[in-house]
Amino acid sequence: MPATVRHARREDVPAILSLIRELADYEHELQSVEATEATLLSTIAFADATSVSPSQETGLPVTEAPSPSKPARCLVLVTPEGTTAGIALYFYNYSTWRARPGIYLEDLYVKQTERKKGYGKRLLVELAKEVVAMQGGRLEWSVLKWNEPSIKFYEGIGAKMMSEWVGMRVDGEGLTKLAGLLG
Amino acid sequence: MPATVRHARREDVPAILSLIRELADYEHELQSVEATEATLLSTIAFADATSVSPSQETGLPVTEAPSPSKPARCLVLVTPEGTTAGIALYFYNYSTWRARPGIYLEDLYVKQTERKKGYGKRLLVELAKEVVAMQGGRLEWSVLKWNEPSIKFYEGIGAKMMSEWVGMRVDGEGLTKLAGLLG
Repeated sequence: MPATVRHARREDVPAILSLIRELADYEHELQSVEATEATLLSTIAFADATSVSPSQETGLPVTEAPSPSKPARCLVLVTPEGTTAGIALYFYNYSTWRARPGIYLEDLYVKQTERKKGYGKRLLVELAKEVVAMQGGRLEWSVLKWNEPSIKFYEGIGAKMMSEWVGMRVDGEGLTKLAGLLG
Repeated sequence: MPATVRHARREDVPAILSLIRELADYEHELQSVEATEATLLSTIAFADATSVSPSQETGLPVTEAPSPSKPARCLVLVTPEGTTAGIALYFYNYSTWRARPGIYLEDLYVKQTERKKGYGKRLLVELAKEVVAMQGGRLEWSVLKWNEPSIKFYEGIGAKMMSEWVGMRVDGEGLTKLAGLLG
């Protein structure tokens, strides 16, 4: 029996939080994790326990509707033994020049003990399928520049590095300050 | 009378497309613009002509509901003379570690002839206000590394460069190939 990839249900939240914490630890940022089971429950659009998601007919997710306050969807990979071994947390982005939606993969993680089994690729393929099913334009994500093994893996499955761009961010006090800048 | 910033309505689409084309030209990529009035109309969540958006009470947008196939919202800046001088096209992102939504600004553009009037800042402040109003975590965007004047401007209003990250993208044929990789 192969591993299963499906959209997360509310009962998957403890396993999801545990994997988020493992990922943050891997990125040396465990102290930055503010997510709790309660906040994950209120910000991810979940599948219910009886639906098959993504749909086998359309390839599209069958979950609660994403919205600005609940923008994320989450795929989980469950091993034949029933372990939640990997997650892909994502939301919908937009290409202005193409006027088409797409998917931005915010976090992809496979448990250390479940590596080298093709699970990361499996999750990326599922996301690519959803972009194709929704007639979207692109699948995007970011990677830490020091993480060369991941970059090689991503380039191997057809991803291009967007080296000419750099991200900018305003958060925390900077956000409140910017919001109040013009009085 | 100061300039007005409000959410785009369907009748703003010709002006929006014209500004998108100006921006692409500025980035030396005019040939990459595939957007048409029809595709913009079907992928942006618009305000109707009678609503005041963002709401003066809540600070939140009053538009059609964004969805995976219509993920974008658009702010327009209209000068006292009635010219649509600037646009901010954006969608909703997600921080896993905070389990909070936020805003990703896909494109910000102010007409060449309307620069140096604070209009770019005005649009960024509006977006920061929306992030605060929605109790979101962060406002993010990307900039071309060669565009030093923009980077200086962004740092001046409190943005941090995310220099340790690089974007990855799969699109076009690469996307179809990835979607079919595991048969």
